[in-house]
Amino acid sequence: MNPSKLIKKKRDGHELNVEEIQLFVDALQNGAMADYQVTSLLMAIFFQGLTFQETVALTSSMAKSGVQYDLSSIQGPKIDKHSTGGVGDKVSLILAPLAAACGLKVPMMSGRGLGHTGGTLDKLQAIPGFEILLSREKFDHVLANVGCVMIGQDEKIAPADKKLYSLRDVTGTVECIPLITSSILSKKIAEGTEGLVMDIKVGNGALMHTKKNARALGQMIVKVSKKLGLPCQAVITNMDQPLGYAVGNAVEVLECVEVMQGKRPFIEVPNNLTSSDLREVTVHLCAQMLILGKKVRTINEGRKMAQNALASGEVWKRFLLLVEAQGGSASTFDHPEKLLTGTTKHVIRSKKTGYLNAIQSEEMGYLLVEMGGGRKKVTDTIDPAVGFLLHRKLGSRVKTGDPLATLFVRNSADSAQFERLFLNTLEIHSARKPVPKLIQETLT
Amino acid sequence: MNPSKLIKKKRDGHELNVEEIQLFVDALQNGAMADYQVTSLLMAIFFQGLTFQETVALTSSMAKSGVQYDLSSIQGPKIDKHSTGGVGDKVSLILAPLAAACGLKVPMMSGRGLGHTGGTLDKLQAIPGFEILLSREKFDHVLANVGCVMIGQDEKIAPADKKLYSLRDVTGTVECIPLITSSILSKKIAEGTEGLVMDIKVGNGALMHTKKNARALGQMIVKVSKKLGLPCQAVITNMDQPLGYAVGNAVEVLECVEVMQGKRPFIEVPNNLTSSDLREVTVHLCAQMLILGKKVRTINEGRKMAQNALASGEVWKRFLLLVEAQGGSASTFDHPEKLLTGTTKHVIRSKKTGYLNAIQSEEMGYLLVEMGGGRKKVTDTIDPAVGFLLHRKLGSRVKTGDPLATLFVRNSADSAQFERLFLNTLEIHSARKPVPKLIQETLT
Repeated sequence: MNPSKLIKKKRDGHELNVEEIQLFVDALQNGAMADYQVTSLLMAIFFQGLTFQETVALTSSMAKSGVQYDLSSIQGPKIDKHSTGGVGDKVSLILAPLAAACGLKVPMMSGRGLGHTGGTLDKLQAIPGFEILLSREKFDHVLANVGCVMIGQDEKIAPADKKLYSLRDVTGTVECIPLITSSILSKKIAEGTEGLVMDIKVGNGALMHTKKNARALGQMIVKVSKKLGLPCQAVITNMDQPLGYAVGNAVEVLECVEVMQGKRPFIEVPNNLTSSDLREVTVHLCAQMLILGKKVRTINEGRKMAQNALASGEVWKRFLLLVEAQGGSASTFDHPEKLLTGTTKHVIRSKKTGYLNAIQSEEMGYLLVEMGGGRKKVTDTIDPAVGFLLHRKLGSRVKTGDPLATLFVRNSADSAQFERLFLNTLEIHSARKPVPKLIQETLT
Repeated sequence: MNPSKLIKKKRDGHELNVEEIQLFVDALQNGAMADYQVTSLLMAIFFQGLTFQETVALTSSMAKSGVQYDLSSIQGPKIDKHSTGGVGDKVSLILAPLAAACGLKVPMMSGRGLGHTGGTLDKLQAIPGFEILLSREKFDHVLANVGCVMIGQDEKIAPADKKLYSLRDVTGTVECIPLITSSILSKKIAEGTEGLVMDIKVGNGALMHTKKNARALGQMIVKVSKKLGLPCQAVITNMDQPLGYAVGNAVEVLECVEVMQGKRPFIEVPNNLTSSDLREVTVHLCAQMLILGKKVRTINEGRKMAQNALASGEVWKRFLLLVEAQGGSASTFDHPEKLLTGTTKHVIRSKKTGYLNAIQSEEMGYLLVEMGGGRKKVTDTIDPAVGFLLHRKLGSRVKTGDPLATLFVRNSADSAQFERLFLNTLEIHSARKPVPKLIQETLT
């Protein structure tokens, strides 16, 4: 392979063939292309795109670039869920035990948070002792016995994607639909799941800011996934505001505990906290997973099954089993408020009267980073205890003096600065704007 | 500077400001951007272009990235010529002593050949002893005393361009008008010339294949050069066939010797060799240089002065002075045919009757590379003695059996293969096609 010719071919808008894509993926690991040639090709792909065939070939080659899990020895339908990421998106923590309680096996490999979006792994690690690196045997054991398992990406899974992603991240080629598609699916295919539900977030807190782009990404993922033998459905859900009321690692765990237990485990805060959108998205995604796993035939059947499981207390039991199986202790949740130890509460009150019409969700995500609860660079460490709770969501009527949020800060001296940043993310007007639809579209 | 943000800004079509361009040029030398970020930005520039202001800033920053020659102590107008490169383009070897004979000072820094185009430095080095690396003092001395000096690019001149070019070369971003402009002009500005004539080659043997692109490049170079205080004119000349009759390092020197001496210095070969196009382009470019150097006011005055200098024998004397001043020996040209020692002659004859309507000039350039007379990689060494002479040029009537070319090959066993490659570059038809105009346009 001549790397320079390959780059020019894509640059000039020609389709790369399967062999060329394979050589490219090989080159990511054997050094036949220098990093500075890989990034040049990535930028050419950003402008020229990849065809469906190219995307399939790239996904397949990357999936095969490392270890591939074979989960066939584990009974039951293995179905996973993946989100393109958002602010306050804690769905996985409830969904994995929920789907398990409904009879599915959920082999979930998640990522860390970076930039304004949170990561499931960071939330799990807010639970003392929770192990996110399991041996291959332990992974199978937890999955078979608990019905779900939640770990970080095995280093040996899709190493070509790992390399490619690390380059994209620092060279302006993250926002590229075929590359996002290949990155997500290569890992999911290698992880051995038999079905995948994608949560495509759309809005000002998501990777995809417009419905058009979200739909294009969802369609591409579903089509490529199916072509490679992995049944897939995508649900487009709104991310113009954080999901649920909690933003921050420990506080998000506590919100999930509330949803699973059906009661508020919290130290007292001002009123108006609602998880209804979180619950709705979780139940809906679970229903899609149940369809893929052939446990139900319709979305309504699936929703009913999920709602019953949540109401029965079975999901909470399953979650505690998972925590214990992965090194944590169920007793943590006897006093869950201890997860916030060392932080100070600071209530932010409205300086205006009107309707909460918009939240700059990306900026709100970056506020958590500023508070110490997220990462600017992959090597940053995070403070799991910091975060905030939203007392108002889009469409709410607020009056001057009403509590808008409760911050949990490490140093109370920073509260004024964080309050200012928080208030800057809100738009309060006298006329109420309609709230975007939560579950926008399903792509099958 | 956040490299990733800089890349995204250009990727999304925004103009970089002077400070950002300066940070980018600094980063090429201080490592603030990794190579894989530089190449990603270059590909974004390939697609989004650079504005005039951006190109001026990039050129200026790169010109200042290293040493800048100050030639003000040398008497007379310092005027240089630069070509975008072609096949058989040996103009500089005649033009430098010609312009010197007409009263200009020519401070010429040239490059090596790479790919299908030849390089002036390689041609000069076909002359035994010719030194292309001179000290700063020697450079001034030769320029002042001979009137011209021909060297390789000083490593300390525009090092940022050197770095950028080496990355562009292997990442598919050579063919980009603002980047070509900045690369050429940054070096010319740093070299200290007071005027520049650009020979923009257009055709199937040139970097620019279409008149439209050649004109765009020429206009950009003239405009940016003037903005930075370097008077500049560009001449668009045809490169749909090699210039002159010789292609190869030593044979091109010999063709230049013929033009300068006014007689053929050659071992006997079949007939029909013509340098009329080479002579025409050289005289025309010299006339442009004389206008820039204020030696004449019109192109016709300039052409007349150049033709007289050529006819007087003064140019040949100047050339021998240059050779002696830079380490060679005038006695080399007592027996110039010795430059071809060790090669075997092989005459290629036509297998068709008709008109020579087209030459794949790029392929003809690559034939020389195959023969050992050019480079595939910068680290390749070349064989100066191999090459070929064209007995027919575009528009010629040829009959079966007529000599088309004489090859000088290192191993006669290769002759059949080279003959086949040579014949593949020619198109001979029964109807004669018009020959492209040699000097197409002047941009001032």
